[in-house]
Amino acid sequence: MQNHSNLNDIGVIGLGVMGKNLALNIADNQYHVSAFDLDPVKVNGVIQQEKQERAGLEPRILGCANLTEMLASLTKPRILVLSVPAGAPVDGVCSALISAGIESDDIVIDTGNSLWTDTVEREARYKGQFVFFSSAVSGGEVGARFGPSLMPSGDIDAWHHVAPIWKAIAAKVDSSTGLPIERFEPGNPVTEGEPCTTYIGPAGSGHYVKMVHNGIEYADMQLICEAYQMLHDGLGMSAAEVGDVFKRWNKGSLNSYLMGISAEVLKQADPLTGKPLVEMILDKAGQKGTGLWTAVSSLQIGCPAPTIAEAVYARAVSTQKSLRLQLSQKLAGPNAPAIDEAQKAQLIEALESALYCAKVCCYAQGFQLMAMTAHEQKWQLNFAEIAKIWRAGCIIRATFLQSITQSYEDNAELSNLLMADSFASALSEKQGLWRIAVATAVMQGIPAPCISSALAYYDSYRCETLPANLLQGQRDFFGAHTFERIDTPAGEKYHLDWSAKERTLAKV
Amino acid sequence: MQNHSNLNDIGVIGLGVMGKNLALNIADNQYHVSAFDLDPVKVNGVIQQEKQERAGLEPRILGCANLTEMLASLTKPRILVLSVPAGAPVDGVCSALISAGIESDDIVIDTGNSLWTDTVEREARYKGQFVFFSSAVSGGEVGARFGPSLMPSGDIDAWHHVAPIWKAIAAKVDSSTGLPIERFEPGNPVTEGEPCTTYIGPAGSGHYVKMVHNGIEYADMQLICEAYQMLHDGLGMSAAEVGDVFKRWNKGSLNSYLMGISAEVLKQADPLTGKPLVEMILDKAGQKGTGLWTAVSSLQIGCPAPTIAEAVYARAVSTQKSLRLQLSQKLAGPNAPAIDEAQKAQLIEALESALYCAKVCCYAQGFQLMAMTAHEQKWQLNFAEIAKIWRAGCIIRATFLQSITQSYEDNAELSNLLMADSFASALSEKQGLWRIAVATAVMQGIPAPCISSALAYYDSYRCETLPANLLQGQRDFFGAHTFERIDTPAGEKYHLDWSAKERTLAKV
Repeated sequence: MQNHSNLNDIGVIGLGVMGKNLALNIADNQYHVSAFDLDPVKVNGVIQQEKQERAGLEPRILGCANLTEMLASLTKPRILVLSVPAGAPVDGVCSALISAGIESDDIVIDTGNSLWTDTVEREARYKGQFVFFSSAVSGGEVGARFGPSLMPSGDIDAWHHVAPIWKAIAAKVDSSTGLPIERFEPGNPVTEGEPCTTYIGPAGSGHYVKMVHNGIEYADMQLICEAYQMLHDGLGMSAAEVGDVFKRWNKGSLNSYLMGISAEVLKQADPLTGKPLVEMILDKAGQKGTGLWTAVSSLQIGCPAPTIAEAVYARAVSTQKSLRLQLSQKLAGPNAPAIDEAQKAQLIEALESALYCAKVCCYAQGFQLMAMTAHEQKWQLNFAEIAKIWRAGCIIRATFLQSITQSYEDNAELSNLLMADSFASALSEKQGLWRIAVATAVMQGIPAPCISSALAYYDSYRCETLPANLLQGQRDFFGAHTFERIDTPAGEKYHLDWSAKERTLAKV
Repeated sequence: MQNHSNLNDIGVIGLGVMGKNLALNIADNQYHVSAFDLDPVKVNGVIQQEKQERAGLEPRILGCANLTEMLASLTKPRILVLSVPAGAPVDGVCSALISAGIESDDIVIDTGNSLWTDTVEREARYKGQFVFFSSAVSGGEVGARFGPSLMPSGDIDAWHHVAPIWKAIAAKVDSSTGLPIERFEPGNPVTEGEPCTTYIGPAGSGHYVKMVHNGIEYADMQLICEAYQMLHDGLGMSAAEVGDVFKRWNKGSLNSYLMGISAEVLKQADPLTGKPLVEMILDKAGQKGTGLWTAVSSLQIGCPAPTIAEAVYARAVSTQKSLRLQLSQKLAGPNAPAIDEAQKAQLIEALESALYCAKVCCYAQGFQLMAMTAHEQKWQLNFAEIAKIWRAGCIIRATFLQSITQSYEDNAELSNLLMADSFASALSEKQGLWRIAVATAVMQGIPAPCISSALAYYDSYRCETLPANLLQGQRDFFGAHTFERIDTPAGEKYHLDWSAKERTLAKV
């Protein structure tokens, strides 16, 4: 598989936590890596870490002092992995590579969280100088080190060169169970199972798919947080008790990486005070942009993704802590009667259903968004494959993705996940409990913007007739925007002469 | 006031419904207007309409065959009003004006729904060739004809030239009552009262404020639609009965132009079938972009505006009629018990409160968004004045804006409308009924995305502590994103070594 000359197989540029871990992961898989960072301390760091981890064995990572040295150390066509912050740094390295003598069939893989439209532009900009390829990476630092989910896109010939390495380093799924094969041992990578990488499509499509992945991740995280607040503030449970509920849920249909780590966070004691750590963490959420890009994209293309947008807004509200502090003194809440033990058990059960249903809606929103954008961009996305490569390695991995894969294998043209029989019947069965959870949050005064927005999404799609007929009437009244009728052919526009004494209808 | 040479005072370019009505409005106010459109039929149309409306009197509108003729017909510095579609047509006319010999101190006023950042770019681009000024216009065709709300921005000297005409043609408010002075008579304009126009700020700010106005408008319209669906589908009321409820509400704190026209639309019979017109209108809502721009802007700047975004998504769901048709067969709803007469009266009352509270939240979102963007752009916006000029002429005019004006006059630095005593106490008093309305919608299976998202917004801001602490714990777990603590100085970042056997906390 790997190259046996004295030249290396692949270069990694940028040795922050992601780049370093990717380099170590690639070396674990028998490839020889040239590594470079502007900071020589980081170059030395990765070399020392490899030495420590695989003591006594021949090292497979070579530190480079500059890009010229790196280019000279690699077999051709060269494969160069960029792990630098999205934005200007990507173009900075590309220019430096051109100065250092990169060749036209060399391949540069951007692995950062770049905005997908930037990726499209870069592929065109660097054409003829080198092949600008991209591969989004999900899984955080542990994923990068022991198996991430990889979403490559761009030139198909470049992919053929990159594929063997990418398949080797990706997370793996047990093909019989659909579950991740997890082994976090340096020098002992997972080599069996189905690799979580697949060629996504033309330039930009991989970053787009990763962006939507992150949008779903935002919503999924927020849903779990809302359940926590309901259990903690509404039912008076301690952080550790909520952690136990989450652990139990994690054994059922809600099984997911995020549910598992949420239980761990909630059960974690603070090393400084001994109190629950979560209660010592400041409730201001950070963000890096991919969630809001997803929401923006959904608005621009006209795909309903309210639960993803609500998750982005929830982070924004969280940052306005001083305003919340003031408003908490000023705005009244309900005088809801206390919840007794019998109701408590019912409510926990209701919340489990609510979380499941809302989660399905988030995924439905994300997949529909990818489908609408693919249609616009003329990408042929394979949604069964996309769901497959999210089953391990990435942050939103969940057993649940197996059902999504199945749904798209049954019908590749599925317009919305809610149309899949399995999800339609699960949600139909659970919607009663979902409503109880939302109504309780509403009456208790506990915000649940994502769980309740997902229910409104579900109920909106259940409506053969929505009140947009009144809305079109309003628009025709004040702006002569016209309307279609239900009893005339589609596309025929009508306007009522609202300001006349005798109002008449005209076809426009 | 007006110019008495044989040169005209102002030129109007583009004689669609808005341009034509602006020209007639300006002429009504004694100014002499040169009018041009690429389509000579439209030029003739406005001239004929003036003749008809003011038969026997000396005409004040002069038709021009081309832009050179228009420039020759105007007093200097020339004032030219553009009423052409946003986007490329604006630059098309600007180029044509340059070719026709426009001069550097001539003023071109873009009155379309341009994207505010385009306006900023255009001011810079045309500098030295002419003064690119802008003035957003709200009020639809009737507003343009008899008094719109006008939001001018850009060069302050240009504003001094434009102001007399703008004040003359704007809608007027009775300064003692704060209510619109409405008179829709050609040749007999409203000349008394406070004009609904004020200089907003530097280039782009007027279009930005108008964009947010439209975002609020989207949400306000959708809120009314949700109330209609609750009353119609949930309580089984006919369209005309709902119209009567709206007429009644329109006499109270919900008084607004949109509430009034909604009642009219609901009570309107279809001229073709005799059935309620609303039930013959296809429930697919159109949109032109300003609502989604507002939501996009709020996401990008990190201002929570979920109710505006939900309104944009509601329009998107409405357009997917065939998917809704299929899903209405596939997804189960609740088996909610029928609502009896006593509950019905209570629910109508609850809905009235819900609509009021949700409406306050929409405005709070819009005004906070303007404040955050003004801060970023270093605009000095006067929110009391902005609320004032929305009291008449524009689509979202409502008595309610008088209280908003008052709130900002009391405190120009108000960070959120919910902080104003009057709104805080009104919402605190009504929140119980708001909850009943939302919980009922949830249990009945009627989508109310905006009314319920506004409640989650209210409840989120009521929380001194939000579950974003768990979210920061999740982010630190999978991505080493670090967190702040509640017991250490702001800005200090911590990371727990989650993957170690003995987890330790480090300051980063």
